[in-house]
Amino acid sequence: MPVRDLGWSDGLFESGFGHEPVARAVGWPARVARMVEVEAALARALGRVGLAPPDAVASILQACDIERLDLGALAHEASRSATPVIPLVRALSELASDEGAAHLHQGATSQDIVDTAVMLQVREALVLIEEDLFGLAERLAELADRHRHDVVAGRTLGQQAAPVSFGLQAARWLGATDRHLERVRALRSTTLAVQFGGVVGTLAAYGELGLHVVTAVANELALAEPDLPWHAERDRIVEIAGGLMGVATTAGTIATDLVLGAQTEVGELQPTTGTGPTSSALPHKRNPVDAVAARAASHLAVGELQTLLSVTAGHEQERASGAWQAEWVALPSALVRTAGALRRLRAAVDGMHLDAGRARRNLDEHYGLTGTEALATALSFHLGRPEAQRVAGRVAAAAASSGVALREAAVGDREVADVLSGDDLAEALDPLGASGTIDALVDRALATHRGVRAAESQ
Amino acid sequence: MPVRDLGWSDGLFESGFGHEPVARAVGWPARVARMVEVEAALARALGRVGLAPPDAVASILQACDIERLDLGALAHEASRSATPVIPLVRALSELASDEGAAHLHQGATSQDIVDTAVMLQVREALVLIEEDLFGLAERLAELADRHRHDVVAGRTLGQQAAPVSFGLQAARWLGATDRHLERVRALRSTTLAVQFGGVVGTLAAYGELGLHVVTAVANELALAEPDLPWHAERDRIVEIAGGLMGVATTAGTIATDLVLGAQTEVGELQPTTGTGPTSSALPHKRNPVDAVAARAASHLAVGELQTLLSVTAGHEQERASGAWQAEWVALPSALVRTAGALRRLRAAVDGMHLDAGRARRNLDEHYGLTGTEALATALSFHLGRPEAQRVAGRVAAAAASSGVALREAAVGDREVADVLSGDDLAEALDPLGASGTIDALVDRALATHRGVRAAESQ
Amino acid sequence: MPVRDLGWSDGLFESGFGHEPVARAVGWPARVARMVEVEAALARALGRVGLAPPDAVASILQACDIERLDLGALAHEASRSATPVIPLVRALSELASDEGAAHLHQGATSQDIVDTAVMLQVREALVLIEEDLFGLAERLAELADRHRHDVVAGRTLGQQAAPVSFGLQAARWLGATDRHLERVRALRSTTLAVQFGGVVGTLAAYGELGLHVVTAVANELALAEPDLPWHAERDRIVEIAGGLMGVATTAGTIATDLVLGAQTEVGELQPTTGTGPTSSALPHKRNPVDAVAARAASHLAVGELQTLLSVTAGHEQERASGAWQAEWVALPSALVRTAGALRRLRAAVDGMHLDAGRARRNLDEHYGLTGTEALATALSFHLGRPEAQRVAGRVAAAAASSGVALREAAVGDREVADVLSGDDLAEALDPLGASGTIDALVDRALATHRGVRAAESQ
Amino acid sequence: MPVRDLGWSDGLFESGFGHEPVARAVGWPARVARMVEVEAALARALGRVGLAPPDAVASILQACDIERLDLGALAHEASRSATPVIPLVRALSELASDEGAAHLHQGATSQDIVDTAVMLQVREALVLIEEDLFGLAERLAELADRHRHDVVAGRTLGQQAAPVSFGLQAARWLGATDRHLERVRALRSTTLAVQFGGVVGTLAAYGELGLHVVTAVANELALAEPDLPWHAERDRIVEIAGGLMGVATTAGTIATDLVLGAQTEVGELQPTTGTGPTSSALPHKRNPVDAVAARAASHLAVGELQTLLSVTAGHEQERASGAWQAEWVALPSALVRTAGALRRLRAAVDGMHLDAGRARRNLDEHYGLTGTEALATALSFHLGRPEAQRVAGRVAAAAASSGVALREAAVGDREVADVLSGDDLAEALDPLGASGTIDALVDRALATHRGVRAAESQ
Repeated sequence: MPVRDLGWSDGLFESGFGHEPVARAVGWPARVARMVEVEAALARALGRVGLAPPDAVASILQACDIERLDLGALAHEASRSATPVIPLVRALSELASDEGAAHLHQGATSQDIVDTAVMLQVREALVLIEEDLFGLAERLAELADRHRHDVVAGRTLGQQAAPVSFGLQAARWLGATDRHLERVRALRSTTLAVQFGGVVGTLAAYGELGLHVVTAVANELALAEPDLPWHAERDRIVEIAGGLMGVATTAGTIATDLVLGAQTEVGELQPTTGTGPTSSALPHKRNPVDAVAARAASHLAVGELQTLLSVTAGHEQERASGAWQAEWVALPSALVRTAGALRRLRAAVDGMHLDAGRARRNLDEHYGLTGTEALATALSFHLGRPEAQRVAGRVAAAAASSGVALREAAVGDREVADVLSGDDLAEALDPLGASGTIDALVDRALATHRGVRAAESQ
Repeated sequence: MPVRDLGWSDGLFESGFGHEPVARAVGWPARVARMVEVEAALARALGRVGLAPPDAVASILQACDIERLDLGALAHEASRSATPVIPLVRALSELASDEGAAHLHQGATSQDIVDTAVMLQVREALVLIEEDLFGLAERLAELADRHRHDVVAGRTLGQQAAPVSFGLQAARWLGATDRHLERVRALRSTTLAVQFGGVVGTLAAYGELGLHVVTAVANELALAEPDLPWHAERDRIVEIAGGLMGVATTAGTIATDLVLGAQTEVGELQPTTGTGPTSSALPHKRNPVDAVAARAASHLAVGELQTLLSVTAGHEQERASGAWQAEWVALPSALVRTAGALRRLRAAVDGMHLDAGRARRNLDEHYGLTGTEALATALSFHLGRPEAQRVAGRVAAAAASSGVALREAAVGDREVADVLSGDDLAEALDPLGASGTIDALVDRALATHRGVRAAESQ
Repeated sequence: MPVRDLGWSDGLFESGFGHEPVARAVGWPARVARMVEVEAALARALGRVGLAPPDAVASILQACDIERLDLGALAHEASRSATPVIPLVRALSELASDEGAAHLHQGATSQDIVDTAVMLQVREALVLIEEDLFGLAERLAELADRHRHDVVAGRTLGQQAAPVSFGLQAARWLGATDRHLERVRALRSTTLAVQFGGVVGTLAAYGELGLHVVTAVANELALAEPDLPWHAERDRIVEIAGGLMGVATTAGTIATDLVLGAQTEVGELQPTTGTGPTSSALPHKRNPVDAVAARAASHLAVGELQTLLSVTAGHEQERASGAWQAEWVALPSALVRTAGALRRLRAAVDGMHLDAGRARRNLDEHYGLTGTEALATALSFHLGRPEAQRVAGRVAAAAASSGVALREAAVGDREVADVLSGDDLAEALDPLGASGTIDALVDRALATHRGVRAAESQ
Repeated sequence: MPVRDLGWSDGLFESGFGHEPVARAVGWPARVARMVEVEAALARALGRVGLAPPDAVASILQACDIERLDLGALAHEASRSATPVIPLVRALSELASDEGAAHLHQGATSQDIVDTAVMLQVREALVLIEEDLFGLAERLAELADRHRHDVVAGRTLGQQAAPVSFGLQAARWLGATDRHLERVRALRSTTLAVQFGGVVGTLAAYGELGLHVVTAVANELALAEPDLPWHAERDRIVEIAGGLMGVATTAGTIATDLVLGAQTEVGELQPTTGTGPTSSALPHKRNPVDAVAARAASHLAVGELQTLLSVTAGHEQERASGAWQAEWVALPSALVRTAGALRRLRAAVDGMHLDAGRARRNLDEHYGLTGTEALATALSFHLGRPEAQRVAGRVAAAAASSGVALREAAVGDREVADVLSGDDLAEALDPLGASGTIDALVDRALATHRGVRAAESQ
């Protein structure tokens, strides 16, 4: 079968684990469009500071039309030049007047155009990622509020440890999501800076006007103006990657909790959508498809972000011979994968519901275990902590070996009965005994989220 | 500028750092084609062992026609099922007779089909990688032989240390390339195994015929038959990734040497092709474009292989919920990136020539340094090593401080003159003094390569 | 609290996640000991080929006494030289006669000594890793055989899918473990090669005797002799890292399965040892401590192996300025972490037992799900596959909605009853219906293991 | 040679690539000391909110004495419990009164103690890292100012491209260093938060006083108080790792430039210290030892930070079974390695000087290349850019082919002579023609640094 003739497409891969709008924002066509935008901004800046006459500027702006470029040919030629800017400038020159061509790209270097275009792409991708973070946070806020008193087992090392509420779990996720949202906003407003320095970062071609050109380009594009060109100083890229890494790892963490909560033997967190076409052989199997895909995408995103971070160390001298070019692929890919993880996680959270009854039964079946700490606490006010822990441990062991519930064993225990009444015990062993603090914690997360929402709507 | 409407394409990225034939071999269309091929092989296997009637088999084989499938729709549906096999089987069923549909995919699980299809894709990609490894090795063998006596400076920690020949450098690269070629061949012949176990690896649906089905499928596809299904045992994937990692890191290493050798101040290894359109501003700049691109692709390949390796640890139970799905993207991507690094490196080596005169001048200008060891060795036969080293060090220091060549300083040194004649010195300080051993080492690499070539032509 | 005065020790870290014998084999003291061993081997080799007189060799061998070296001082000085060999050779010279000192280290370069010493360290570490792999395999073989008919739920994406036996699961793990054992053996016997080339790999200091010196050193140390020196060709290191990666990822995979099987709601795989001191607050909590530690160590090992792999790409020219030195840390650390993951996994497997009753109950409680495929297969011989799947799906849905077991629902279903008797159903829905094939698969793994054991005892 | 008996020590590795004060701050003894400090802070907090009587608090504080603990035994026991806190609390209990023991660790969980202790360790390590960043920045500021007009070749893809000054290069490095300093300060003041939630994050054991306990503990330790416990939300760890990653990658980048500048054929940046004992065989070889070690440490740091980042994705439920424990090793190791890279880089920068004469000669020898852009710019004011580029390119080609300097060729060129006088040409081709802008850029970096210094001295 001549599969080589079928063409390449990342089909499944992209549609399953990526994020189409982000892919469009950071892909090659958008890269060209953004580079054209930067060349246009430079032309306007040159005009503003008096380095290019109005006619030249007008001609350049007219030439800067993505529709008139052959993107495939540009890609092909770019791969022969180690930079996409050389063929781009040649193509635009052919569309401009002689005077326009004379001032096109004046004083700039390839890396100025590419890095600044990348900043514009990152900005658009971050806006889209913020939208998904906000949508996820909104849903989590709703879950946190609604389920604040729906008891589920808290689990450490996979073992039931003590009761918690699903609302508090959602509030924890909400907290992380809102913090990421604030970090992404901060990235967008302070980290994204214009790159402009000319061939070796001295702005040599502009005489005394170099800094004015940079300021004008930054203003045109609404990007920050850095102290110095940053051709080889990639700390901004590290900051962006660090911010994305938080999103990607949080997506993996929450998705893992969803997969674990959906296990056949746990069944607390049921996927209601995104479970795919039911298998004909296993018609009742409800796979947590979105959560699984989010985990996969998180793995991919973390991996690509690690790649991106590692290449930031390799930018030697005034332009890197390999590390910079690797960023051209790794940064867009990392953005798409991170956004993909977030998108699938959001779908998984949207399409999931708590089976509160099942959660409670899971807890009750093993409550000999998870109530022991609460019993010891209740006893400690009467017996002191060491004695209380000894008694609680003994009662729990008795309950476990005889197969009765912890409360039942406690009620019948003489040492317990000496200090705690049946009502005391009922109160102490109420899985929702900590609900006051849980409420306060959930409220904190919701209050923070209201602040985040207020900022979002501005 | 509504760049979101421009569509996504990895344009530049793919054409610049990837490998189109490998991309075609491992992409989504080929994935579907290979899955169809596996379903067809299963049908034939079922027929052979008597689990499916000839008519059913014939109907399935007729339905197994990649041309009749809507690849985009399959990708879309696949992303909703956490497996591409469910929509594929449904689509094929609609193309088959009822009897064919009844036996299509019988007893198999999604992972059987996907993993086996991946093995077929990997096999085709490895063949292509072998071709480039062989082409590279052929060129390196030619360079090793031709330049075996062309002296260049050997450099440690970036400092000239002692003379070596470019032929020996090429022979070292050849050795690594040939070893990789043999490893890739071994992977192809022993590591690629059919995956077949049914839903949880028990072959339960085939009664007593399970192992016969596996054998028949393996024979149909010319893949190895494993002891057991390996749904969660990814050591074969680790082996493949390990083999590719060697190729990717060697590509990065050689490419780095080419970039270093092409530096303005070194200029020994001149790029003759692949230097891109000359910059209008910097017309004489000859960028080693292919070597730079190979370094970039090597970074990307190493990163993706690290991602692939790390997910192989996450295959829990009878099918992983995230790690397996991440492999769907990471393995093809790692193959394309590794092949891309190799392809650009091959182009860089093809399009490079040694400037032997420049290399010799580089050495001569600093030969006070690199000849000191040779001087000490020559003196040691007369003075013993400690005394010889003391004298050689003194002479070298004198040469350095007075700016004369080491030989000149040595000829005029009394302690040296006492034991070494001018002819002795000329012989001792001949940068090619070690040429006997260099010849032997180069011959070893060439002999190994002849064995590799003989195996290739079989 | 002046914690800076407390000194540094990796205390917990090493004892918890590492492997003390491997740490001793690959640490700094052993590194010095091995470097001394290499210098001694070189002296003997020089004597053998006639480049050093017997007295000099004898003096060097007498000086090569690790007990007389100040390891701390060597470490301190080494950090100032970018190589530990310069201070080592100086220290050894002071212990040798003048004649011995004159021939000590003759013609060698630092990297010859370090890389060859590392090969010796790796060999010792691999022997220890093989011991643990073999011990683990022995235990898994026992589990595979003993539990071949103990039914547990097979799970895909965390969902019960169909019955399997614990013995088959153990057989799968055994298969991977035995394959790793064979790979590690192969590494030890074929990959570990002497490094010997002199300052730039030309063996220049030995005149025509260079290759004879290499052969003699290789023979002395029982290491393979490579075609060429490999100062910058690190494919052997990649091979070693690839082999270790398989061990590390398999350890993580099995440990994850143990943690999942020990979850409160699953409880099939119970830790019996290594659960640590019981918490006073949670006396019944049985944490799967060894499995958790194995997962942690696997994470650390995979990470360090990735680091090691990535630096193998950075060996420029005749000696790397950074990548090689990073290997000095990354390779020992990766060995210790990999061995640590394996050691903790082995402890976890040793200290775990199957709760077969609980496993069966887990399956029975959800068998409406996992039996559906078996029901459909039984029906298909009478109704054809599409019809069989329709009926099986309908029965399973009815069972689920009415809360009865699948067999009960099937017995009462008219369409089923038309073709399958009660006995037929009992046989079809027997979770051990596939036991014939399971037996065969387990036997395959055991047979392979017998071959591995036979090779081990040689 | 029984090397297994030599004991394990990371001797060379630590002393060569690590940072002893940071190692002391983050090692196991300090970990225990910090955990004791957290237990003491909890006792005081319990006393303050009225949950523990003064005598109990006093007894606990008296018991909290690191000197009385057996650190080795604690490490040993910790490895059996999957947490170091259980044996620590037992050991402290034995040192306290019964009443003290009853309130020791009351309501806390192991992860509260460990994570909070880690925050204290990170804080101390960050202070030390800040010191080195500040020291490095001070030195770079000095270099930037002193060498602002010392011309060196700017190099892109390893090729000389245009003149720049070493002062501007140092200013670029200074900018990155100062930004990292500000990021590390921000981490220290806002990211480091107390972890306190009790076994599953509900603060259940404190009744209504839970949040007051958290506030009191945070105040005692001068750490931030988070909205919610963050047992499984590791975004703070991601932030810390992201900040360190910037430091580690910048260290690698600058160190690479130092190694490249010290190459025999370049020789602009000469190591004056830290070149190690001179090799007896190669007495004039001046290896840039510190820069090489910084590159190695940077590789190691980036790798360990990647490991740390990847495990942050694996924190399931209320406590991770593997990922958290891996952090115990990966975070301290990443801090030591990052600090080590920075320390060696600082030493490399301190012990390096610019050979300004050599730098100028390097430029002059190839100035036909690097002056072409300047010539074209000068011509463009008279001829327009396209024509100017054509002429400049022609002159440069003529200069290159005839082996004369660009200025010489230009002076003799008729088209040039028509528009530019000899003085014009001298001015245009002055490598310091851009010095106005260079001055302004350097001044910007110095001004920012003055702000950073002012903040440091507060």
